[in-house]
Amino acid sequence: MYEGIVQDLIDELGKLPGIGPKSAQRIAFHLLDAEEESARRLAEVLMKVKETARFCEVCGNVSAEDLCRICADPRRTDEVICVVEESKDIVAIERIREFKGRYHVLGGAIDPIGGVGPNDLRISELMRRLASNETQEIILALDPNIEGEATSAYLSRMLAPMELTVTRLASGLPVGGDLDYADEMTLGRAFLGRRAV
Amino acid sequence: MYEGIVQDLIDELGKLPGIGPKSAQRIAFHLLDAEEESARRLAEVLMKVKETARFCEVCGNVSAEDLCRICADPRRTDEVICVVEESKDIVAIERIREFKGRYHVLGGAIDPIGGVGPNDLRISELMRRLASNETQEIILALDPNIEGEATSAYLSRMLAPMELTVTRLASGLPVGGDLDYADEMTLGRAFLGRRAV
Repeated sequence: MYEGIVQDLIDELGKLPGIGPKSAQRIAFHLLDAEEESARRLAEVLMKVKETARFCEVCGNVSAEDLCRICADPRRTDEVICVVEESKDIVAIERIREFKGRYHVLGGAIDPIGGVGPNDLRISELMRRLASNETQEIILALDPNIEGEATSAYLSRMLAPMELTVTRLASGLPVGGDLDYADEMTLGRAFLGRRAV
Repeated sequence: MYEGIVQDLIDELGKLPGIGPKSAQRIAFHLLDAEEESARRLAEVLMKVKETARFCEVCGNVSAEDLCRICADPRRTDEVICVVEESKDIVAIERIREFKGRYHVLGGAIDPIGGVGPNDLRISELMRRLASNETQEIILALDPNIEGEATSAYLSRMLAPMELTVTRLASGLPVGGDLDYADEMTLGRAFLGRRAV
């Protein structure tokens, strides 16, 4: 235990995800040693983030304006909407530079144990978007886990009556992985999704 | 890349030691989702830490007052001073609940490549302490690496003319470790320091 403000800083840092007591201590001493500027800049950004962080009115992505950069981009097509759980999934998909459609951020996945139901997600916003635009395909790009599967299943049922193509990302072996390290679920999916060569 | 303030927060978090881009992103989204309180508390502590963090006038330990808790404790003996590199070493040694003397924090170790010489450390403060008190033993508890060794050697020479016992922490195999995983230096030290049983 340290005295006074240094321990307070270690305690606050230790509440962040992925920061254990050792890391919290290391960061606190780093900030104590650094020029005053660096702790102050971090403090300012922290103060501002809650006030100024906004979410795109259309897709729910983290945004600096009312419309995020992707929704405001006229070069992208409205024909395909890729549904994701979180804004960070958009960043991951944008990194592959393949997808030229729009996104829709649900804000999570259905998780009965965690108390997240369909009404806690931005599903009604998605339905409203579909009523008023020329979407032809919905790509469900949810996490490949139980919550993501449940949410995909729920959305598929909701979307079935509409004249839309609904697709999901392929499951299978990760590129560069070893077959014998793959878990049974992944290997099972890879078999089911096998293709003629 | 995110838009606006969220990316600023990720950038600032990513400058902290041990926080990579993925962790920075995870912490930023955690703070975005958390109640406003938690980001604000962290910001406040960051603002205050540089102003209010103080160092003990005697030993250089992180402190809330002019004298740290250890230097102010009348139950501890002035006869032994344990010399450490950083305040966090004091916390580690206090945890074993064996040592009842005082400490002296050097603020680092001699490191010619990093540009740290004896004059950058609190060595003259240590000499002044020795002139005016009843110290009988100095324990050099520096890190067991090249910089720590160099600093121990330098301090031993400085302290040799004084009528003091100068000791160092034992080097050897870590308890609970496997002998065949020990590096050659550690194993060599363990041999040199072997004891009759």
